[in-house]
Amino acid sequence: MTPYLAVLNGPNLNLLGQRQPEVYGHDTLADVEALCTDSARAAGFGVRCVQSNHEGVLLDAIHEMRTKAAGFVVNAGAFTHTSVALRDALVTVTGPLVEVHISNVHAREPFRHHSYLSDIADAVIVGCGIEGYRFAVERIATLVGRHRA
Amino acid sequence: MTPYLAVLNGPNLNLLGQRQPEVYGHDTLADVEALCTDSARAAGFGVRCVQSNHEGVLLDAIHEMRTKAAGFVVNAGAFTHTSVALRDALVTVTGPLVEVHISNVHAREPFRHHSYLSDIADAVIVGCGIEGYRFAVERIATLVGRHRA
Amino acid sequence: MTPYLAVLNGPNLNLLGQRQPEVYGHDTLADVEALCTDSARAAGFGVRCVQSNHEGVLLDAIHEMRTKAAGFVVNAGAFTHTSVALRDALVTVTGPLVEVHISNVHAREPFRHHSYLSDIADAVIVGCGIEGYRFAVERIATLVGRHRA
Amino acid sequence: MTPYLAVLNGPNLNLLGQRQPEVYGHDTLADVEALCTDSARAAGFGVRCVQSNHEGVLLDAIHEMRTKAAGFVVNAGAFTHTSVALRDALVTVTGPLVEVHISNVHAREPFRHHSYLSDIADAVIVGCGIEGYRFAVERIATLVGRHRA
Amino acid sequence: MTPYLAVLNGPNLNLLGQRQPEVYGHDTLADVEALCTDSARAAGFGVRCVQSNHEGVLLDAIHEMRTKAAGFVVNAGAFTHTSVALRDALVTVTGPLVEVHISNVHAREPFRHHSYLSDIADAVIVGCGIEGYRFAVERIATLVGRHRA
Amino acid sequence: MTPYLAVLNGPNLNLLGQRQPEVYGHDTLADVEALCTDSARAAGFGVRCVQSNHEGVLLDAIHEMRTKAAGFVVNAGAFTHTSVALRDALVTVTGPLVEVHISNVHAREPFRHHSYLSDIADAVIVGCGIEGYRFAVERIATLVGRHRA
Amino acid sequence: MTPYLAVLNGPNLNLLGQRQPEVYGHDTLADVEALCTDSARAAGFGVRCVQSNHEGVLLDAIHEMRTKAAGFVVNAGAFTHTSVALRDALVTVTGPLVEVHISNVHAREPFRHHSYLSDIADAVIVGCGIEGYRFAVERIATLVGRHRA
Amino acid sequence: MTPYLAVLNGPNLNLLGQRQPEVYGHDTLADVEALCTDSARAAGFGVRCVQSNHEGVLLDAIHEMRTKAAGFVVNAGAFTHTSVALRDALVTVTGPLVEVHISNVHAREPFRHHSYLSDIADAVIVGCGIEGYRFAVERIATLVGRHRA
Amino acid sequence: MTPYLAVLNGPNLNLLGQRQPEVYGHDTLADVEALCTDSARAAGFGVRCVQSNHEGVLLDAIHEMRTKAAGFVVNAGAFTHTSVALRDALVTVTGPLVEVHISNVHAREPFRHHSYLSDIADAVIVGCGIEGYRFAVERIATLVGRHRA
Amino acid sequence: MTPYLAVLNGPNLNLLGQRQPEVYGHDTLADVEALCTDSARAAGFGVRCVQSNHEGVLLDAIHEMRTKAAGFVVNAGAFTHTSVALRDALVTVTGPLVEVHISNVHAREPFRHHSYLSDIADAVIVGCGIEGYRFAVERIATLVGRHRA
Amino acid sequence: MTPYLAVLNGPNLNLLGQRQPEVYGHDTLADVEALCTDSARAAGFGVRCVQSNHEGVLLDAIHEMRTKAAGFVVNAGAFTHTSVALRDALVTVTGPLVEVHISNVHAREPFRHHSYLSDIADAVIVGCGIEGYRFAVERIATLVGRHRA
Amino acid sequence: MTPYLAVLNGPNLNLLGQRQPEVYGHDTLADVEALCTDSARAAGFGVRCVQSNHEGVLLDAIHEMRTKAAGFVVNAGAFTHTSVALRDALVTVTGPLVEVHISNVHAREPFRHHSYLSDIADAVIVGCGIEGYRFAVERIATLVGRHRA
Repeated sequence: MTPYLAVLNGPNLNLLGQRQPEVYGHDTLADVEALCTDSARAAGFGVRCVQSNHEGVLLDAIHEMRTKAAGFVVNAGAFTHTSVALRDALVTVTGPLVEVHISNVHAREPFRHHSYLSDIADAVIVGCGIEGYRFAVERIATLVGRHRA
Repeated sequence: MTPYLAVLNGPNLNLLGQRQPEVYGHDTLADVEALCTDSARAAGFGVRCVQSNHEGVLLDAIHEMRTKAAGFVVNAGAFTHTSVALRDALVTVTGPLVEVHISNVHAREPFRHHSYLSDIADAVIVGCGIEGYRFAVERIATLVGRHRA
Repeated sequence: MTPYLAVLNGPNLNLLGQRQPEVYGHDTLADVEALCTDSARAAGFGVRCVQSNHEGVLLDAIHEMRTKAAGFVVNAGAFTHTSVALRDALVTVTGPLVEVHISNVHAREPFRHHSYLSDIADAVIVGCGIEGYRFAVERIATLVGRHRA
Repeated sequence: MTPYLAVLNGPNLNLLGQRQPEVYGHDTLADVEALCTDSARAAGFGVRCVQSNHEGVLLDAIHEMRTKAAGFVVNAGAFTHTSVALRDALVTVTGPLVEVHISNVHAREPFRHHSYLSDIADAVIVGCGIEGYRFAVERIATLVGRHRA
Repeated sequence: MTPYLAVLNGPNLNLLGQRQPEVYGHDTLADVEALCTDSARAAGFGVRCVQSNHEGVLLDAIHEMRTKAAGFVVNAGAFTHTSVALRDALVTVTGPLVEVHISNVHAREPFRHHSYLSDIADAVIVGCGIEGYRFAVERIATLVGRHRA
Repeated sequence: MTPYLAVLNGPNLNLLGQRQPEVYGHDTLADVEALCTDSARAAGFGVRCVQSNHEGVLLDAIHEMRTKAAGFVVNAGAFTHTSVALRDALVTVTGPLVEVHISNVHAREPFRHHSYLSDIADAVIVGCGIEGYRFAVERIATLVGRHRA
Repeated sequence: MTPYLAVLNGPNLNLLGQRQPEVYGHDTLADVEALCTDSARAAGFGVRCVQSNHEGVLLDAIHEMRTKAAGFVVNAGAFTHTSVALRDALVTVTGPLVEVHISNVHAREPFRHHSYLSDIADAVIVGCGIEGYRFAVERIATLVGRHRA
Repeated sequence: MTPYLAVLNGPNLNLLGQRQPEVYGHDTLADVEALCTDSARAAGFGVRCVQSNHEGVLLDAIHEMRTKAAGFVVNAGAFTHTSVALRDALVTVTGPLVEVHISNVHAREPFRHHSYLSDIADAVIVGCGIEGYRFAVERIATLVGRHRA
Repeated sequence: MTPYLAVLNGPNLNLLGQRQPEVYGHDTLADVEALCTDSARAAGFGVRCVQSNHEGVLLDAIHEMRTKAAGFVVNAGAFTHTSVALRDALVTVTGPLVEVHISNVHAREPFRHHSYLSDIADAVIVGCGIEGYRFAVERIATLVGRHRA
Repeated sequence: MTPYLAVLNGPNLNLLGQRQPEVYGHDTLADVEALCTDSARAAGFGVRCVQSNHEGVLLDAIHEMRTKAAGFVVNAGAFTHTSVALRDALVTVTGPLVEVHISNVHAREPFRHHSYLSDIADAVIVGCGIEGYRFAVERIATLVGRHRA
Repeated sequence: MTPYLAVLNGPNLNLLGQRQPEVYGHDTLADVEALCTDSARAAGFGVRCVQSNHEGVLLDAIHEMRTKAAGFVVNAGAFTHTSVALRDALVTVTGPLVEVHISNVHAREPFRHHSYLSDIADAVIVGCGIEGYRFAVERIATLVGRHRA
Repeated sequence: MTPYLAVLNGPNLNLLGQRQPEVYGHDTLADVEALCTDSARAAGFGVRCVQSNHEGVLLDAIHEMRTKAAGFVVNAGAFTHTSVALRDALVTVTGPLVEVHISNVHAREPFRHHSYLSDIADAVIVGCGIEGYRFAVERIATLVGRHRA
């Protein structure tokens, strides 16, 4: 079976492309997931994408995939700054974890400058728009030692 | 179709009238929603009321109504102080937003003195009991320029 | 004799309508006081209005009315954030106290986020423009149990 | 009908025994619930156990049991540090409330040193492994005046 | 001419005996000033008493007496915690300065724990009721080397 | 020779039962020590109990027993919040260490929320009244692997 | 009519030359005002000078001159550090605003390091003695584009 | 038997008159105790004086006298700022408690600005030299309602 | 002429591959610069690489290239956390700016959690090892709208 | 030999007129130095001007001139907020020191509100554009007692 | 009589060589005191060594020796971070005071980074193992001007 | 070849003996380096001394010697408090590192109380004048196990 990457998107990311395009751009969640699929395929991975506005749904998904997915690409959205529960779930995953933010959180409100995930992640990519997801996928591919042949 | 106002109530507000009446009074959530309905009707609006203890349900509801509702009356209860996700959703609504608290949060524990919603709201009304909802409805009516004929 | 409400406005509110209309709107202090008079009359109250740029004048006025007025509507302006003396005077009034701010102080400079009055007030209404004064009058009317017949 | 104790476990506690055994030990959630059942029975109580990764599910459960359960044993996991909503729900329960943590939270990250529940709980037991649940049950039994006959 | 002591009382102290007697007791400002007069006379001093709710009036009074009065007894009330201007005026007085508070400010709100006057005063007496004024007068008498004959 | 547990009680705990019974209950120090003795005996241990108002006496006692006692039950009272010296001594003990507080320190003054001992203890039990000592003894018994036969 | 500059001096500045000459020097308020008059005249301006120990008097004066004066030279003295009301008034003036302090406030007590005026002023000049007023006048002249012919 | 006042002096106060006379003056501990004796006798009380550099000795003394002494005059010296244990003991005394400091602690290092005793004391007298002890004795006499006949 | 990207590496990065390989890996600065050259060439850019332990040298280099380089890839090393001067220089560059850190700074000492550059950068990439430089180059290429043909 | 003033400009000030003219204006460093030369000459001084992006160069220059220059005019740019070394060098100069900033640093980012130089300077002039250098020169001339003849 | 140095060791230092040798090394208190004796003798001094776990005993010892000892070598152990009383005693000694810590306190818990003694000491030597005591003795010898002949 | 110690002195230390002798004494940098040479020779080491006001020069020097020098004696002067870059370089040296400060930094401005080097140093010696360098050399000699034969 093809190994897969978990791609998690948190609250309000379903609005991507509709909400505040001056901050988040015009790409949609479907674009993000397509980009991840393509990038992952190029590296020999499948993807499983989950987006939810429900923290519990994200937790359940992490639990289900935490030892099965080859790696996690996570944009936890607002939960980044408030959810210890997500941290506690993600610290248990067996593969690499890369945190992504579409906008440059460091240039926004102070409460966005702290992440409960960054210190347990392998890498953090912010402000690269949806291209950051591609970088995340490629980084995980590097870390799990699978390069495109 | 009659334009409508979204009336959102957050966690534990279903207990209104049962929980700590010395803090929150004896009115119930049904009383709140009836009051909103009456006040809104007087201003020429319908209402759509949502109460949930699930942050995700509130987020989904905001997403569904964010560009359709003429305005939002929001008492996010405890989520006021902890939910960046609600802030991120509410900052995208197209109509006016009025934050309501039944009790005087400023006279309670320090962690209730900060709201993730106040600086993105148009107005904040605290400590007016359930009458605060009426004021919120009337303020939105003023802001959208619809006065009772 | 008709019971009356005290309506206090603090420093710089005499400039209402002239100063920073993008923040405070175009209504004048006279408009505010007329609105209070009308709202109060509708609830069976008279009003006594005091505006001063002198903290001491406001203190003297509170002392004079503190047990006579049926309630206090107070927009202390900048003194909200700096005057312990006003707090000490207002904590002694016998009727309800409602704090009003025309603009949304929570969306402005951090030093406007703290009020020396809020925790001793019955209610706080911010960002409703001058309509907030009407809400304050109506809330006091509710609290003193006098509804229009 | 036999009076019962509510035993609530928060997010990620379903992973007990699998997640970080060096921190949380090898016992599973089933072991915890069996232990609670046995301890409670010895004290003349039944138990109703709820575990969820969804804050809203926990809130709903508390609402359902808050005046019916003889006492609450609560390990809110990560929500301990972030959920004002759980605090607001638990402050309304009629029986004793004992907070339990399996690991010694005081020896871990600083954000685990603050609990939104401790000051409204009757007792707090940390670092006793799953034995802490037994202590919690016994403490509640003492407080409700029911000793094993 | 008999040397005199300045006795300054700040905002709201004119309400003494009427305002919050559980905090400030039943003695009036007239009682305070009579007590000071008696205590001072016993030590060979006259007194000049000023109470005002106007910071500017207190400043003017200090300026007028700052090099003439043999000492200052000052209960600045709420201005204690907020007025750098009073500090700047009082630091220029030539005689001893004793700060008095009728209630125990240390057992009240945190903002009453800091005084802009204490570090420039010779002595600080709090929580002794109006008897504190007598102690202040006696302390100044000691400091200026004038004991009752 | 029977292994023993060290039971240390800090300053003012000799007043137990006399001092603030609404906080600490009506049990006395003798009751605490009898309870520890019984609980320990049930687990196959003796006890050595020390109470002192002198930090130095407690330090000397810890030094004497630190490698001999099978475990330490410590209620350091006020020293919990101020004594680095006790921490430095207790970090050297060879058996398990359980910190006990009779009252719920988290519901009291902020300076009681920090303990110099908690992060070096194996477990912390607060708010269980004197029953907390029994739990501590039982926890140590579990940790040293000695169960009643 | 000759355009004029408003020169405002705050509390205790009437004592200039008498109070703490080691801090403020030996020049008097009359010297300051004469210097301003001379400097302004050289730049083609008149001056209107106001000094008061009463915040309200300063506010009233600002209100009177705020759109008429060509610029404001303000040494608010102690009010610099405490008066939001002055800030609120001065933010409405139509000409340039230069803040002046005779002494080097940065070398004094920490509470003098923050000014409620600096961020709304065009320039801030501290520690230049009374010469700072001349610089302020000249800077305003530059800003309003009037150079001595 | 004559009722008595407890007069407690903390660490280093045995050096009074020798140590830093520019801070503490030239009076000795014997002078302090004689002054207390005289003042107390004048009010109809005996005194029991204890000075110790050992916190435990002070605690033991408080325990011995806490319900027997008519009142407590306490200068805890350095323990004022560090000893929760003294606070815990003194909160249990049945008579009035007056805290005394010879020097003006507010004009010294920041760590001397906080006292663990002030908020549980009836009164606090600082910077009055040893005369502060006389004031403390007289204040207690007033509070226990015993005036010299 | 081929447009070029500026690649700046700050202090100690010349030690790459020698210093703390467990933190920074085994790649050398030459590897980094070769990687940037290759990535840039693929996107149609040249590179100009500067590494220095001298802040002034970096500033001079930025000044020289700030309007000429098509974009900046900057790993300021330790200067990230301390140099306002670098920020002031980089805020003036005309092309995109991407901040890179080889290690995950968020998992290291607290003083590495703040960057003077992040809020003025377009993107920030941390913890991706030297691969982060490739991502940075690609992101800049995207931003300047030049994709490999 | 004509006495001279040292005029030091820190990092990025060589870009004056090119960098962010909306903040710093259109004058160039050459304009600044010409202005200083003219102002100094009018007061009977020469000038020696140094600008560097290298902290060490500035330190060396201060060392060379510290006892020879009649005074120092220093705009340390970004080093103002970060360089203790410059402070340590400048505290040793024998003549007056005036700190200058072209823009109003108090209206910019919080990290620009603190200066390591202000409390050791004689005067601080901010927000006067390059005219501030003239004021600085004139102030030094006043302080060293040399007025234009 | 040979002048002597006081060598004070605080709580738990009697355990030296037994307690945490990875932190404190294998030397014992006897080794420390022998080293001090030898070093002092080489400099022409005797020593008087005191170690106690009782703060009061240390205070009494300081009082006894404070004007007699030629200098003080003090390793106050945990009291370093908590004892204002020791500071108050040591500030009165007439000879030099050198603070010693065997381990590098700066590399340990944050509460060990502050010392109540350092700012009143002449010198502070940390992390030199027991050799630090020798340095302290030699430094005092230098300061009192007594070199080995 | 004789092993050598690196002796680094930071900014302004070239002024030693000229700058603030009341703080730093009358010894010069040449004296310091001679003392180090003598002390090192006595221990069988040579020395290589570097002083610079340029952080980059110090970094380059550390890089050159970091694995060759037997140990580092570092007085980084003002860079101690501001340079993460020096920390990053020094953490890579292979021999012992001893931090030295001539004056007692703990008795000076608060910003001198934190060092970026102390927690990565083996030892820290402050306030011993230039004798501290000798102690540093001797400590390194001890640590590298080379005693004078």
